[in-house]
Amino acid sequence: VNARYLGLGSRFESGPSPLLVATGFRTESRQARYLHRGLGLADLAHVLALRDAGVLPDPAGSRLLGALVELADRGADELAYDPADGDAYNSREHMLQDRVGTDAGWLSLGRTRREAGRVAFYLAARDALLRLHETVAGFVGAAITRSLANLESWWADLTYWQPAQVSTFGHYLLSFAHEAARHLDRIEASWTRCGLVPVVAGGVAGTTVPVDRPAYLRRLGLGGAPTTSRDAMWSVDGLLDIGFVADHTAVTASRMAEDFLLFASAPFGYVRLHDAHCRASVYLPQKRNPYALTVVRGGTSVITGRVGGLVTSVRTASAQTDNWIYNYGEVLETVELAGQMTALMGEVLTEAEFDVRRMAERALDGFTEAADLAERLVSESGLDYRTAHSLVAATATAAERRGDTRLTAQDYQNLARQSGADLSPADARSLVLSRAHDGSAAPNEVHAAADRLRRHVIDRSRWRDKAGQAAAEAASRLVAEGRTASAHPVRTEGIQP
Amino acid sequence: VNARYLGLGSRFESGPSPLLVATGFRTESRQARYLHRGLGLADLAHVLALRDAGVLPDPAGSRLLGALVELADRGADELAYDPADGDAYNSREHMLQDRVGTDAGWLSLGRTRREAGRVAFYLAARDALLRLHETVAGFVGAAITRSLANLESWWADLTYWQPAQVSTFGHYLLSFAHEAARHLDRIEASWTRCGLVPVVAGGVAGTTVPVDRPAYLRRLGLGGAPTTSRDAMWSVDGLLDIGFVADHTAVTASRMAEDFLLFASAPFGYVRLHDAHCRASVYLPQKRNPYALTVVRGGTSVITGRVGGLVTSVRTASAQTDNWIYNYGEVLETVELAGQMTALMGEVLTEAEFDVRRMAERALDGFTEAADLAERLVSESGLDYRTAHSLVAATATAAERRGDTRLTAQDYQNLARQSGADLSPADARSLVLSRAHDGSAAPNEVHAAADRLRRHVIDRSRWRDKAGQAAAEAASRLVAEGRTASAHPVRTEGIQP
Amino acid sequence: VNARYLGLGSRFESGPSPLLVATGFRTESRQARYLHRGLGLADLAHVLALRDAGVLPDPAGSRLLGALVELADRGADELAYDPADGDAYNSREHMLQDRVGTDAGWLSLGRTRREAGRVAFYLAARDALLRLHETVAGFVGAAITRSLANLESWWADLTYWQPAQVSTFGHYLLSFAHEAARHLDRIEASWTRCGLVPVVAGGVAGTTVPVDRPAYLRRLGLGGAPTTSRDAMWSVDGLLDIGFVADHTAVTASRMAEDFLLFASAPFGYVRLHDAHCRASVYLPQKRNPYALTVVRGGTSVITGRVGGLVTSVRTASAQTDNWIYNYGEVLETVELAGQMTALMGEVLTEAEFDVRRMAERALDGFTEAADLAERLVSESGLDYRTAHSLVAATATAAERRGDTRLTAQDYQNLARQSGADLSPADARSLVLSRAHDGSAAPNEVHAAADRLRRHVIDRSRWRDKAGQAAAEAASRLVAEGRTASAHPVRTEGIQP
Amino acid sequence: VNARYLGLGSRFESGPSPLLVATGFRTESRQARYLHRGLGLADLAHVLALRDAGVLPDPAGSRLLGALVELADRGADELAYDPADGDAYNSREHMLQDRVGTDAGWLSLGRTRREAGRVAFYLAARDALLRLHETVAGFVGAAITRSLANLESWWADLTYWQPAQVSTFGHYLLSFAHEAARHLDRIEASWTRCGLVPVVAGGVAGTTVPVDRPAYLRRLGLGGAPTTSRDAMWSVDGLLDIGFVADHTAVTASRMAEDFLLFASAPFGYVRLHDAHCRASVYLPQKRNPYALTVVRGGTSVITGRVGGLVTSVRTASAQTDNWIYNYGEVLETVELAGQMTALMGEVLTEAEFDVRRMAERALDGFTEAADLAERLVSESGLDYRTAHSLVAATATAAERRGDTRLTAQDYQNLARQSGADLSPADARSLVLSRAHDGSAAPNEVHAAADRLRRHVIDRSRWRDKAGQAAAEAASRLVAEGRTASAHPVRTEGIQP
Repeated sequence: VNARYLGLGSRFESGPSPLLVATGFRTESRQARYLHRGLGLADLAHVLALRDAGVLPDPAGSRLLGALVELADRGADELAYDPADGDAYNSREHMLQDRVGTDAGWLSLGRTRREAGRVAFYLAARDALLRLHETVAGFVGAAITRSLANLESWWADLTYWQPAQVSTFGHYLLSFAHEAARHLDRIEASWTRCGLVPVVAGGVAGTTVPVDRPAYLRRLGLGGAPTTSRDAMWSVDGLLDIGFVADHTAVTASRMAEDFLLFASAPFGYVRLHDAHCRASVYLPQKRNPYALTVVRGGTSVITGRVGGLVTSVRTASAQTDNWIYNYGEVLETVELAGQMTALMGEVLTEAEFDVRRMAERALDGFTEAADLAERLVSESGLDYRTAHSLVAATATAAERRGDTRLTAQDYQNLARQSGADLSPADARSLVLSRAHDGSAAPNEVHAAADRLRRHVIDRSRWRDKAGQAAAEAASRLVAEGRTASAHPVRTEGIQP
Repeated sequence: VNARYLGLGSRFESGPSPLLVATGFRTESRQARYLHRGLGLADLAHVLALRDAGVLPDPAGSRLLGALVELADRGADELAYDPADGDAYNSREHMLQDRVGTDAGWLSLGRTRREAGRVAFYLAARDALLRLHETVAGFVGAAITRSLANLESWWADLTYWQPAQVSTFGHYLLSFAHEAARHLDRIEASWTRCGLVPVVAGGVAGTTVPVDRPAYLRRLGLGGAPTTSRDAMWSVDGLLDIGFVADHTAVTASRMAEDFLLFASAPFGYVRLHDAHCRASVYLPQKRNPYALTVVRGGTSVITGRVGGLVTSVRTASAQTDNWIYNYGEVLETVELAGQMTALMGEVLTEAEFDVRRMAERALDGFTEAADLAERLVSESGLDYRTAHSLVAATATAAERRGDTRLTAQDYQNLARQSGADLSPADARSLVLSRAHDGSAAPNEVHAAADRLRRHVIDRSRWRDKAGQAAAEAASRLVAEGRTASAHPVRTEGIQP
Repeated sequence: VNARYLGLGSRFESGPSPLLVATGFRTESRQARYLHRGLGLADLAHVLALRDAGVLPDPAGSRLLGALVELADRGADELAYDPADGDAYNSREHMLQDRVGTDAGWLSLGRTRREAGRVAFYLAARDALLRLHETVAGFVGAAITRSLANLESWWADLTYWQPAQVSTFGHYLLSFAHEAARHLDRIEASWTRCGLVPVVAGGVAGTTVPVDRPAYLRRLGLGGAPTTSRDAMWSVDGLLDIGFVADHTAVTASRMAEDFLLFASAPFGYVRLHDAHCRASVYLPQKRNPYALTVVRGGTSVITGRVGGLVTSVRTASAQTDNWIYNYGEVLETVELAGQMTALMGEVLTEAEFDVRRMAERALDGFTEAADLAERLVSESGLDYRTAHSLVAATATAAERRGDTRLTAQDYQNLARQSGADLSPADARSLVLSRAHDGSAAPNEVHAAADRLRRHVIDRSRWRDKAGQAAAEAASRLVAEGRTASAHPVRTEGIQP
Repeated sequence: VNARYLGLGSRFESGPSPLLVATGFRTESRQARYLHRGLGLADLAHVLALRDAGVLPDPAGSRLLGALVELADRGADELAYDPADGDAYNSREHMLQDRVGTDAGWLSLGRTRREAGRVAFYLAARDALLRLHETVAGFVGAAITRSLANLESWWADLTYWQPAQVSTFGHYLLSFAHEAARHLDRIEASWTRCGLVPVVAGGVAGTTVPVDRPAYLRRLGLGGAPTTSRDAMWSVDGLLDIGFVADHTAVTASRMAEDFLLFASAPFGYVRLHDAHCRASVYLPQKRNPYALTVVRGGTSVITGRVGGLVTSVRTASAQTDNWIYNYGEVLETVELAGQMTALMGEVLTEAEFDVRRMAERALDGFTEAADLAERLVSESGLDYRTAHSLVAATATAAERRGDTRLTAQDYQNLARQSGADLSPADARSLVLSRAHDGSAAPNEVHAAADRLRRHVIDRSRWRDKAGQAAAEAASRLVAEGRTASAHPVRTEGIQP
């Protein structure tokens, strides 16, 4: 262990303590599964840039490229990432050293381990964000689909779990679609900021190595607003953005899960989960537990904690590496978990049965037409609103004290008499249809809103496909370039061995 | 107490318990200082819209407008916001009732208390975000200014508090400017999302009241992507955005504070805070404590906690009001606190003295030219990088064991001999100047980056001024319209009592 | 402003910046309402100790005592605590200086501002913890009382909101009483640790002032395990304990609130809150919202955030004051808020109506006797448990597919036939009574457990009363001693100018 | 997959969705590594209790015991815990079914999956807490040892990183030992509460199965204050305690790490980490980064986040399983991580070199004798403290303006003249020795405090050894009893098939 590690610095008389290996290095080394691919691309871009600049002579360069291409062709799990070596970067260096000896050292010319790590992380983060984008778009799509199928599913929308106002279940469902769709924008903003990476930045303040930095970034498919090497190296806001956007998406899924837990209870009985999302009990033979919903809610708690830890972690002084040791992994796992929670909730939503008959039967329970009725008293009898509201409230109170949960025909007659308005009992459908304006629960309006939203999501999905394709192409091109270059050593001048 | 409260609903046999008044209602009522102005604007817009729609007849409408204008002319602290009445909205209703009796009731036609609250909150949040934007821009400006004054302040930049690489203090400072400048974009995105408010949305699902909703929004200076009334009423992502952006800005200020705490220590002695930011000790006569820095860091911890509480709070089921009861106040106070921390750090930065002589004296301590030297060995002697790195490391290790903190002329000669390179001892200035590329610490590069950033901030400040002006004008126009309308009752037709 | 402040140190050329006053000093000064009483006691103990040691001569000592007694007789709100002076300690020093001139300076002999603050804080924290203890004991008492009144309120206990097993509502309620009662122990442990204060500790490492430290602590009614002055001054674990115990208590209240939100929904209809805990709607005339429950849940979110901020805050290096600047207030407000949430939930619980008839009617809905039935199949027919469980599960599934929510007599007959057991349909009462063992829902067992718990709480309340009385007596004694001493200056020898 | 899963309930037409397996079940199944041992013990205790009660007939019982003993003899990693089966309990049931067929079903008689999980978790938590106890005791021991070795290492203790008062490094180090030692009590309190488990509690409300519950608990080595089955099943305060105590311990380690990061900086140079805790740089040849310290600090941020997530998670309604799905693993991993951070910091502390010469050289820099000097002016010249303090402050200010960092002999003479006191320049040693009182930095006092603490820790370690031994013995006894019983089937009467 120590011998290999010592090889790096030769400044130390002993290698790392086993406890340090079992904690810090193990944590960092485990991140190879996220960083392997990006480290490979970063290394290729680095070597090609040094070679273009005439700094790295052949055959050292071409041999190193050959080894890099070989590693790039393999998955992280096929390779010996070993905590005893340090982090993923160190392990790679050992792998390369085994293949090309001291030529591997060129990878550190003009570049710190942490620069390579940043590039790899942001490449991985971009991939993860695009996957999250796709998952969220899928959730939005599921909510739109089920909303459109429930445009005329009358129900009493709730506040504080109390019946509030007659509406449609389609209107209810679409509200989650809109909230989730806004996360697409957030994901894109975070994705864009992930383009901000240090390039041959030396320790932090730059280097004399004369590489073509714009070309370097193009090779990686990265780039963003110009900044300084210190900012690109040490700023933490990009990390926070990723954590925050993961929390945003999970919270939306969790809120729907929380609602559905209630709606799936026996007394409500509005939602029945698919068997594939339920769980039996080994003890209670009759149980059919909505397990998937607690998975979503609990996972969101975990995510919320992770993001809290992230904020605590980055709130240290600048240029401290604990921002990164843990957060490469923590952040990417958080995005992955947020995606899983969103996908699971989308699947539950797609497969659930809604008991729309039961919803409709109870749509007027709890006097949910009261506000509409007060409005009718105003418009038809010229009462002022306070008086109208009080009349209806008194009527509802009296009915409730009688033990009724709805207004009766007699209540309507009394109200008509008291107000002078021409009133007849309302049904859920006509109440909802009477509210014809942008954004309301009226089926036409929900339909229009859903259509608009679907077009928006298609639009954003096009962006995602394009971004993903560009990233994939850049990566392929880079590996191909490395492969070609490794096979064609050049005669280097300027720098002579 | 109870009598007034009962007046609202007449459904209850008792008023709220004193404990409920002392907890929930007190919390909500205290928010009047944030919501008063926005509630006034929301009420004016509502009454004008109802009046335009011919729903609200005069003189009720004009009298109500008159009372609203009177309240709008006064500050929250001049008015009797009283927890015994409930929340700020309820208190206002009582004030209006005292002035115009049951005419006050019209304010609830087509609109819940919480809709008025949302509008008022988002108006207040927009103001708060613009103030934060200005504060952050000021911080960026301060960092740019001091960066430009320290383009040639050579120092050893640090990682893990260990000397890393020769750089300039201007390069160091500018990294905070870039990080903070990105917050401007985040603030703007959050500001934009605050345009998403429910408009005459009834309980949640719409209403029959035939108002012109686009005109309503124009009066308020609001508006955004179209959505449903349920989404506008109950989504929580807008709240989270505001909290997250506050955390972002505070974290940046806190990171600089943490650095400066170190730099202000006697052994470092790089930074001396202005007396106005220090604190004496009543016990230790010699103390001169960098108090302001701990205020910034501690305040950031408080903010981080607030935002954690916010996430926990909104992660409930949908349509639960505890999202809002506490968060109106929590969120706006958090933004305010983040602004204070940023402003204070900006002021500290502006007023602090930097001991650039001391920085320069130590710029090469800890062998900080080592990486540059290794690069020179490569470029001048054709060594491979691993070998060059090892040679320098061995030289530094030997020097350190001798008790030196710098390389000596002899060390350089030895290295020259070992490598065949033509080497002479470097000074900090030439090392930094030799790294001439975009983003590096070279004075020209930092100057160019600072200029670019300053133009960007000026640009964003123009946006802010415009946005602020538009909001202020909309508000003035709305009050003026209310004033005029209150003085000119119209003969209402259509709706006749 | 500055002049007064400068008086303290005379080391500064300017006073604090207005922004520093508006942030740090305002925050600290606001804490006077918590710290005033304790600072008064700390100052009295300090002066008496110095006087006993012959260090502080009369008449300076007696005049200073007179002024301290005068301040101790007044509330924080009657006195001019002013951020422009700094923190509460500084303001007090100014008040004293206005009364006795430079004699006020003796308060800083051997003692820092922060030592006085620690003592005052821990005294305030002990009071707050005793109040919380009383509130929690009250909550436990309320839960016991209502549990005993519902020993035979049969219902189906729930998991995942799904009917699980027939039980009693008394058993349900008592589980909260037990959880809350454990908080009493936690509060006591935290209270005990609050005895750990620095005593005449100088800057941190002690002082030459020869006071009798044990007597000093006795005067304050404090004391604990011996430790070093640095630990007593700077350790943060005591702060964390207080925050954690507040979170503990609020979480218990919030969990009951969350349950009751569901139980108060129309489809459940198990719980009806008292009017005094509900809220009407200005728009929806029929609404009767369980407002108090959302106040409890939302307040718990706020507390959770506060505690998260506290942990972030104390996780700095040692001897940094931001641990304390904000946390004096944050921690004490958090305890207060936790007490309010607990008290409010206790009041809601005491006043709520339970619809036990409805609970009983539905006790067997959802096949909740299934597990009991499977046990009967085992014990009466000798089936193995897996087979018995499967038989019951199949029966329930078939019934459910028929559209039934309960087993019918026919189902029982079929099961009897299949299993060979002698079965007759069960009723809720006999099912519960058949489970006669410690901790079960059987009325006798719940009764016994409730009695045991009540005795425990009475016991703990005796501890609390004793602790509270001792603290109050120590405080009275201290003020009285100061009053007497101020009226009887002694001829000081030993120390003569 | 599905077939096996369906076998459990036979109520479902499909098995779990792959996404549910990949999320919820994977999370739960992964916890086998923590729960395997405890589930084995719980199962053995359960079967033995059923057998003692004559409920479970042989040979079913003895065969099942045989299979359980076989599993108990193997580690979790040797067995096929498979997410496709559900959680660890389900996997075990499948393993048992493969071995003994439907006899495996008896494990669910009178007991839910979650009861078995609770028992297994609390057994695992007790083990983890004892390990943490040992680690913390080790940290305390390390701090005591190094404190005793530095009783006369004079230094200037710091506040805000500013020199405050002359003290000893031994006094500094001991403050961490005291803080950490208090965690031992917290760990023990948490350990005790982990004895509170449900025993044959049925769904939640008890069962008719007539087992001897006290004997059941004795077999498991568990037991605690009596409570109800619902409390034991669903209370969350025990979870929170474990999380909180983990956070407590990590915060202490992290605070020392944060200090040492500073002390290891070149300008301070007080602490030099062992090579085994440092890290080289691949780019900066001279670097020797104090890597272990950032591992400790960063790990503490992660822990803080985990605990925040835990609180969010348990703050749901009662009887919701997301409290447990994730938290079994999250909580135990958090305790493990806290132990690692504490152990690593203890190791760093043990191996670090302290440059006590440098500390001593600077002990008086920054006028750190100022407070002592003011005290001397009071005691020797009879000046009042304010005047004395002002004189010293003015002297220090003047010296500082001269560019000095210490008082000169001339300063002392001037002070002597101004005050009339007999003064001679102080040295660090005599200053510290002059403060002879309990808890001060005087070497004798620190020595006494360290001795007292060491005795306390030895005492607590005895408790731990005893507790650990008792647990180990109970476990061995239980497995042995199962082994014996499996080999000696009894003729069962009473229950005959």
